[in-house]
Amino acid sequence: MKQISILGSTGSIGVNALKVIQHFRSNFEVVGLGAGRNIELLREQALEYRPKLVSVATEDLAQQLRPEFSAKGIEVLSGEAGLIAVATHPKVELVLSAMVGAIGFIPTLKAISSGKDVALANKETLVVAGPIIADEVARNQVRLLPVDSEHSAIWQCLQGTKREAVRKLILTASGGPFFRRDSASFDSIKVAEALDHPNWRMGRKITIDCATLMNKGLEMIEAHYLFDEPADKLDVVIHPQSIVHSMVEFVDGSIIAQMGTADMRIPIQHALSYPERWENDLPSMDLTRCRTLEFFEPDVQKFPCLRLAHEALQIGGSMTAVLNAANEVAVASFLEEKIPFMSIPTIVESTMEKHQAMSHPLLEDVLEADRWAREQATGSIAQITHSY
Amino acid sequence: MKQISILGSTGSIGVNALKVIQHFRSNFEVVGLGAGRNIELLREQALEYRPKLVSVATEDLAQQLRPEFSAKGIEVLSGEAGLIAVATHPKVELVLSAMVGAIGFIPTLKAISSGKDVALANKETLVVAGPIIADEVARNQVRLLPVDSEHSAIWQCLQGTKREAVRKLILTASGGPFFRRDSASFDSIKVAEALDHPNWRMGRKITIDCATLMNKGLEMIEAHYLFDEPADKLDVVIHPQSIVHSMVEFVDGSIIAQMGTADMRIPIQHALSYPERWENDLPSMDLTRCRTLEFFEPDVQKFPCLRLAHEALQIGGSMTAVLNAANEVAVASFLEEKIPFMSIPTIVESTMEKHQAMSHPLLEDVLEADRWAREQATGSIAQITHSY
Repeated sequence: MKQISILGSTGSIGVNALKVIQHFRSNFEVVGLGAGRNIELLREQALEYRPKLVSVATEDLAQQLRPEFSAKGIEVLSGEAGLIAVATHPKVELVLSAMVGAIGFIPTLKAISSGKDVALANKETLVVAGPIIADEVARNQVRLLPVDSEHSAIWQCLQGTKREAVRKLILTASGGPFFRRDSASFDSIKVAEALDHPNWRMGRKITIDCATLMNKGLEMIEAHYLFDEPADKLDVVIHPQSIVHSMVEFVDGSIIAQMGTADMRIPIQHALSYPERWENDLPSMDLTRCRTLEFFEPDVQKFPCLRLAHEALQIGGSMTAVLNAANEVAVASFLEEKIPFMSIPTIVESTMEKHQAMSHPLLEDVLEADRWAREQATGSIAQITHSY
Repeated sequence: MKQISILGSTGSIGVNALKVIQHFRSNFEVVGLGAGRNIELLREQALEYRPKLVSVATEDLAQQLRPEFSAKGIEVLSGEAGLIAVATHPKVELVLSAMVGAIGFIPTLKAISSGKDVALANKETLVVAGPIIADEVARNQVRLLPVDSEHSAIWQCLQGTKREAVRKLILTASGGPFFRRDSASFDSIKVAEALDHPNWRMGRKITIDCATLMNKGLEMIEAHYLFDEPADKLDVVIHPQSIVHSMVEFVDGSIIAQMGTADMRIPIQHALSYPERWENDLPSMDLTRCRTLEFFEPDVQKFPCLRLAHEALQIGGSMTAVLNAANEVAVASFLEEKIPFMSIPTIVESTMEKHQAMSHPLLEDVLEADRWAREQATGSIAQITHSY
C-alpha cells in the first residue's frame, strides 16, 4: 500500500488521480488532500478516502469544514502551512504535486526535503526553481516522477536506455485552438475561444497556456530539469491530434514515441504505479480510427511565448521564474478580460527585459524574482489601453 | 571487438550490415562470409574484410575463387556444409543470419547449437522451425536478436519493461504496392509492378511477399517465437509511410512505438551494437517533413496471405513450415511469370489444406513438411492454366 498525499486534489489532475486510486483502491492509502476553494468537492473526497488531514485555501474555509471533519478524525488546516503539513506528514511516501501556479512550489520542495517521492504535475515548481529542486532531489535521494503527459511520455521512452544514447527529446504540442488561425486576427481572440482546447480538458490557466504555447515552453524548461538535457537537445513539434505524447531520438537515428488516448489517467497511473504497469479498463487506442497523425514545425512568430521560454531557459537562473510569474499575471488578466490575447507575450517579454538574471539563485532569490516579476507585470498591465 | 560471421553477405541485409561494420570498423572482426552465386561481390567483400573463410552456393563457384583466396589465407567452401562452417567457426561470437529462404535455416540452427548469439534477419528460420529454435536458444543460453525493422522496433519498445505489462504487439505494414489498387485488377499484376515497393529496397522474393502481405504474415509468426506472445496478442496495421516500424501496447493503455527512416542500417546496427546504441551519421528523421502518418486496418479479403499466415500460426506445429514452403515455390513461379499474382495465396491455401499438421514436430518432421509442401505446391502450379 502506497501512502499518498495529493496537493490539488480538486483540480483536474487531482480528480483524475483519485479515479486511478479508486480503481486500484487496495494499492493506496490517502493520507492528505490539499485543495483551494472548492470545499464541496474536497468534502466529498475526504468522506470517501478518509485522509488524516486536509488543507484549504483560507482559515475561513477551514472553519466551515472543521466541525464535521473533527468528528471523523480528519484534521483541517489552511494556507501554505496546511499544504506543507499535507505534503510532509510522516506517513506519506509519495506526494502528487498538482496545484496550478506557483502556490504548489514551497509545499513540493518541503515534501522533497522530507524524503518523499514526488509525482510532479505542477510545472511551476521546476520552472521557478529547477536547480534548487534538482539539488534537493539528489540530496534526499527521492524520485521525481513526471505526471504531465509529455514528460511521462519521454520518461517512458527513456526506460531501459542509457543517458548517453539520447540525441534529442521531442515534445509534442497540440498547437492549441489557434494553430490554424490567421495571426492577423489574434488580437480579437475571446476568452471563450482560448478556453476551447481541441483535445484536452484542463484547468483555465493551463488551457490559456496551451493557446499561447507557453505551456509547451514551460514543459521544455521542466524537461530540462527532469531529464538533465540542455536547451539545444529539446525540440517541439506541433502534432494536432495529441496521440503521440512525446518522443526521444537516440544517437543511432532511432526514435521512440509514446502514444495514447488523451486521458490523463494514463500518465497519472504510470507515475503512481511506477516501476510497474498496472492493467486498467481504459479503452484501447485504435490507431486505425485516428487514421492520420500530423506533425508540423512550430511557428514562433505566431506564438512568441515558445521563443520566450526557450530564451529564458538559455539565460537560466532566475529568468525562468520571471517568465513564469509574468505569464501567470498576464494570463489572469486575460481571463478577466483586462488585456487582449497578444498582450500575454508582450508583458512576459517586457518583464524579462527588465530582469537581470542571477545565475545561481537561492530559494529566497527565486521567490524575490517571482514577487518582483508579478509587480512589474501588474504595472505593465495597468498601462495597457485595451480595446475590448 | 565482436567476432562476426554473416550468412547472406551479398544480399541487401548483408551489404547493409557490412556498411555498419565499415562505419564501426574497430568494433568488429569479420570471421566468415556466406553467399550464394554473387561471387564478384563476395570477392570484393572478402578482399576488404579478410575473413578466415567464405562459402558460396556450389563447388563450381568455390573453385573460381579458391586460387586467389588461398593465396590470401581465406578458405573457400560451398553449399550447406560451407554455410555451417561459416556459422560455427570457433572464433565467431555473433552470426548475422541473413540468407533469404529456407536455405538459411540449418546453418542458423547450428550456430545456436554452437553457442553463438544470432542476429536474425532470416525469417524462414522461425517460420519453419520456431519451437525447435526457441528450445535451442534456451538450452544454449544464447541471444536471438531481431534484425527485421519491425521486430527490432518491438524489441526496442519492450526494453526496460516487464513481460506481463504487454497487452499487444502491433506490427506495421506498408501495405505494399497494391494497398490502394482495386482487387478486381489483381490478376493482371505484372512482376515489375509487384517488385516496385514504395518504401524499402529489398531482395526480389521478400518484395513479392510485401506485395501479397505474406511478409507481414511471416513476421507475425516470427514475432510469436521471438517474443513468446500468442497469436491473439499480435496485430497488424497498415501504415503506408513506413515511419513507425512497429509498436507495443501495454496493459495500462500506453503505446510505445519505434520510428525511423526506412534505412535497414538502423535495425541492423541495433542488433550488432546491443545493448549499446552507437552514434552514427545517418540523417535524423524529421517528422515535420513526413508530415502525415496514416494507419489503416488490413484488408484480409484483398490480401489472403495475411489470413493464411494467421491460420497457420494458430494451427502451429509443422503448418507454418508448410505455409512458408508453398509460398516460396509460388513466389518463385510468379517471378518466372508462370502463375498470376493471385495464384500465390491459392497455392499456399490448397497446400495447407492438404497438410495434416504435427503439433510437436522434430527437426526432421519440419524438414519433411517443407519438402512435402514444395512438392505439392509444384504440382499445383503445373496444373494452373495461366492467362499471361
